Amino acid sequence: MKIYELAPSPSARRVSIFLAEMGIDVERVSIDIRGGENLSDAFQAKSQNGLIPVLELDDGTTISESVAICRYFDEAYPNEHSLFGHTPLEKAQVEMWQRIVELKGLFVAMQAFRNITGVYKDRETCVESWGEVSRQRLIAFLPILDKRLSESAFVAGDTFTVADITAYVMCNFMKNLNINLDDSLPHIQAWCQTVSQRPSVSQQ
Amino acid sequence: MKIYELAPSPSARRVSIFLAEMGIDVERVSIDIRGGENLSDAFQAKSQNGLIPVLELDDGTTISESVAICRYFDEAYPNEHSLFGHTPLEKAQVEMWQRIVELKGLFVAMQAFRNITGVYKDRETCVESWGEVSRQRLIAFLPILDKRLSESAFVAGDTFTVADITAYVMCNFMKNLNINLDDSLPHIQAWCQTVSQRPSVSQQ
Repeated sequence: MKIYELAPSPSARRVSIFLAEMGIDVERVSIDIRGGENLSDAFQAKSQNGLIPVLELDDGTTISESVAICRYFDEAYPNEHSLFGHTPLEKAQVEMWQRIVELKGLFVAMQAFRNITGVYKDRETCVESWGEVSRQRLIAFLPILDKRLSESAFVAGDTFTVADITAYVMCNFMKNLNINLDDSLPHIQAWCQTVSQRPSVSQQ
Repeated sequence: MKIYELAPSPSARRVSIFLAEMGIDVERVSIDIRGGENLSDAFQAKSQNGLIPVLELDDGTTISESVAICRYFDEAYPNEHSLFGHTPLEKAQVEMWQRIVELKGLFVAMQAFRNITGVYKDRETCVESWGEVSRQRLIAFLPILDKRLSESAFVAGDTFTVADITAYVMCNFMKNLNINLDDSLPHIQAWCQTVSQRPSVSQQ
């Protein structure tokens, strides 16, 4: 079993923190995304979405999409504290917050970054004004997340879940957009401090 | 238990087809999105993401995000043919394809529509050129989906899953962007025909 990745990328970090939380160690193979290694026929044959990370099982079956990889490990290695929740309501609440943080946060941040910087303009059409709109939408989402974290210890409730991993990776990625967690966001600040001290985060 | 929705919207349709597949009937309350009823304080207090659909349980607990609502029903009403898959590998493959169809298909279609038409320009900044880029990216995704459907009967494998619901809703929504399933996409055409004959789709 191995994971093809670019370790510092947000999607690879989501999987790495998840696996560290579960205490699972998987062989890694580094892919040079900016150099276009992921565009090769060999990689495209493995990756259904053309992107990293990709999990390759021992029989050659591959799984793309970071959350799908996390779910595979959660299901294949049952554990006492599932990061996807336990009861039907918990599972729905984790899915809800995970998606809210993705759709209003992390994915918006990535659209902002790609369109403002044009980092992948060799392979996609960029629209700088959409990047700026996305950056503003991300800034507008932060008080919503701050309010949520004033109501509960973690993003989806009382315990640390995959939604916290997504939110933490988003908060780190914001530095690329010159967005900082200032004092108007005290609950995100405090939660970030707590999460950064977890071994799954601090020891990587 | 009730669902707040705008029935013809893509996200509400995803939930409606899912519930019809499960044979579950839930009271519906119609929300006038274009008139801004979802912007009211009363609705915003129910909806964590500010959007429809919202599931309200009998104790007043609410769940936003269409896929989170679907997952709640899948988990709370265990059934023989889960639309999210059964084994760890199936669950990961459903999640993967569901996300690929969302991230490269349905969400791209919705960004195209909102930015080209400016339908919600009273509440969001639109960038028409991003709408056009999104429309082109959606068109570029269709051959990938067609290839996938040349390899398997349904999007995530041999059986109908939540990923097919997402893809079918996307294909219907494309009409709003003047994108048709022409003869260059024979496998999507045939699959669409099959899906449209399911009672969950044809009887709504």
